[in-house]
Amino acid sequence: MNNPVDITLGREYEGDVGIVAYSDYFCAEPLKFELGGELESFNVRYETYGRLNDDKSNAILVCHALTGDHHAAGVYSLDDRKSGWWNNIIGPNKPLDTNKYFVICSNCIGGCRGTTGPSSINPKTGERYNLSFPAVTLRDMVAVQERLITHLGIKKLAMAIGGSMGGMQCLQWAIDFPDRIGKVCALATTSRQNAQAIAFNEVGRSAIMQDPVWNNGDYKLERVPSVGLGIARMMAHITYLSDKGLEGKFGREQREGQKTPDGKEIFKPSFAIENYLHYQGQSFVNRFDANTYLYFTRALDLFDLRQYGGSLESAFRDMKAKVLVVGFTSDWLFPPAQNREIVKALLRIKKTASYAEIKSDLGHDSFLIHSPKLYKLIEYFLDV
Amino acid sequence: MNNPVDITLGREYEGDVGIVAYSDYFCAEPLKFELGGELESFNVRYETYGRLNDDKSNAILVCHALTGDHHAAGVYSLDDRKSGWWNNIIGPNKPLDTNKYFVICSNCIGGCRGTTGPSSINPKTGERYNLSFPAVTLRDMVAVQERLITHLGIKKLAMAIGGSMGGMQCLQWAIDFPDRIGKVCALATTSRQNAQAIAFNEVGRSAIMQDPVWNNGDYKLERVPSVGLGIARMMAHITYLSDKGLEGKFGREQREGQKTPDGKEIFKPSFAIENYLHYQGQSFVNRFDANTYLYFTRALDLFDLRQYGGSLESAFRDMKAKVLVVGFTSDWLFPPAQNREIVKALLRIKKTASYAEIKSDLGHDSFLIHSPKLYKLIEYFLDV
Repeated sequence: MNNPVDITLGREYEGDVGIVAYSDYFCAEPLKFELGGELESFNVRYETYGRLNDDKSNAILVCHALTGDHHAAGVYSLDDRKSGWWNNIIGPNKPLDTNKYFVICSNCIGGCRGTTGPSSINPKTGERYNLSFPAVTLRDMVAVQERLITHLGIKKLAMAIGGSMGGMQCLQWAIDFPDRIGKVCALATTSRQNAQAIAFNEVGRSAIMQDPVWNNGDYKLERVPSVGLGIARMMAHITYLSDKGLEGKFGREQREGQKTPDGKEIFKPSFAIENYLHYQGQSFVNRFDANTYLYFTRALDLFDLRQYGGSLESAFRDMKAKVLVVGFTSDWLFPPAQNREIVKALLRIKKTASYAEIKSDLGHDSFLIHSPKLYKLIEYFLDV
Repeated sequence: MNNPVDITLGREYEGDVGIVAYSDYFCAEPLKFELGGELESFNVRYETYGRLNDDKSNAILVCHALTGDHHAAGVYSLDDRKSGWWNNIIGPNKPLDTNKYFVICSNCIGGCRGTTGPSSINPKTGERYNLSFPAVTLRDMVAVQERLITHLGIKKLAMAIGGSMGGMQCLQWAIDFPDRIGKVCALATTSRQNAQAIAFNEVGRSAIMQDPVWNNGDYKLERVPSVGLGIARMMAHITYLSDKGLEGKFGREQREGQKTPDGKEIFKPSFAIENYLHYQGQSFVNRFDANTYLYFTRALDLFDLRQYGGSLESAFRDMKAKVLVVGFTSDWLFPPAQNREIVKALLRIKKTASYAEIKSDLGHDSFLIHSPKLYKLIEYFLDV
């Protein structure tokens, strides 16, 4: 089903994985959540690219960020104009080379793109879980991925890789399953959010939870809290980019038009950046569930590797994976220093770890964007 | 009415102006707005501290920022526990020394604290202006201040001083009334907002305008769009502080309490930074009008000194005032470079201008906070 099809779609990069389809893994074994609560069963939606080799040693797990999903590469049909979110990284002769590696990406538990989450039907009640869904942590996300990996017959991942919340998952993997992972490549991430990042998340959650349509989480799928979710996304989107990047792309560019003398017209978006943000907000509410946004941002807030023994060193004590962490100079959400301190802690306890910093004006989202430097780092790290 | 009363209230700084009262200047001469529209008459609410000397040469105009008002110093009664917003700067023997200077601060046109604005009654209709209020620019704010100064019998201001939007007003003063102002002290300001600052403003406006209670600006004073305005304020408040400042003050401090396993409890604010932001949002909606927030943020977006002839140099060509601009290292809303470039442009055309940069971890709001370095700069600048 996921065999690469050699087609040319005129995209930016050669060597696309072509047409893909997702798979579902239904797990009937109960899942206990870190903070309490459990599911009797759950579904995991995932995609794979490339072929698992005979000794099952070439599997790479790709972990998605807050608003990502399992569709990391390829297209769903010849008419599909939008490739998976990391199509530039995954494919034949790309950094995650599907000629060599078996690449897996799954939607996280708590998600809204096929894996069981608050918008899924609780089989016990026949209703959506909504806020009765257990609180989700990064450890829970990884525990579900481990079930999937086991289901696929893989004893040990060659590597886990991801940016932002994906990077947190990779580190959590190496802590929770030290024998089942060879390498970790964590990009634009942190071992715990600082107060500013928590603050932005809380404003986004407040926008959603104070939207009257949200209705304590019990909204109808026909009428979702799109105002609150859109505001949350518009704001968060600013934090994913950089001052300099926005200035270069939009500056003060303004739509031409007659200025009108009062508030009836003057507050309509007229700057290019305003229209861009509204577009981002609108397209997001069409693809993402507001409750999942609450669950995932809370998982981010609660993530703190120092909880495992009081320090990063204690958290990393039993880790066996080789680690590469990459920070991006203009990332002000999870700044370079927060990436670097992960590697510094690993080196202090004599683990094999490297830190690289890539100069980029594109902010936190740099890890998603075409970057030959990042590609080379990943290729090199896979080879060593 | 505004005579300083020598009382001891146990405040941080000696030499408070004591009990003050505001005044109202009703101007019956029509006001034409820069972008069109006019008011037949309007009110300006203001306070003064100190005494105007005989030759009326000792007047200092204090210009308030986005959410400030005319109450810059002193208290309204002995029971009043909250001093004016710049009480640390204004008073006997303080940087704006009321033993020497006559300090004036007025609420800007378009405001909601006594000066005519969208929440005022339109005498023609007997209804609130709301969105029929003309669009406001920085030039309009300054034009109204000039009327007040004239009304007070002052030909020439010794200085105009302000931070953020207040700094923009000061620069606009020196451009629009070059013969009526001796010095300009602009703090934590910019000659035009960049895309990121416009973006944050637009998210705030969207939160207000998409609040159903906002009702296209025609809300009742008994029921205001407090959800949208609160969200806007919470978000904006993050931009007034700094990453490091928030981390030092709040970090990841969390209220103790039993974690509950699902969304019914886990999304309640528990981090100290979350509770702080909610407090900021709530106290703001009790004192500020949502429509004024729209008008003032739009004025900020539209402010661009390069509109006067295409460059800062052309804008500043006829300026006569001596200028001091002060940037704060951790201000990421109007960063040091945006402050510095104002002075660089002035120096290129041989004007008398100085730039100073103060090391501070407190972000954009640094200009409001106790800072002996800032005090010395202001005192020195007043003396030269």
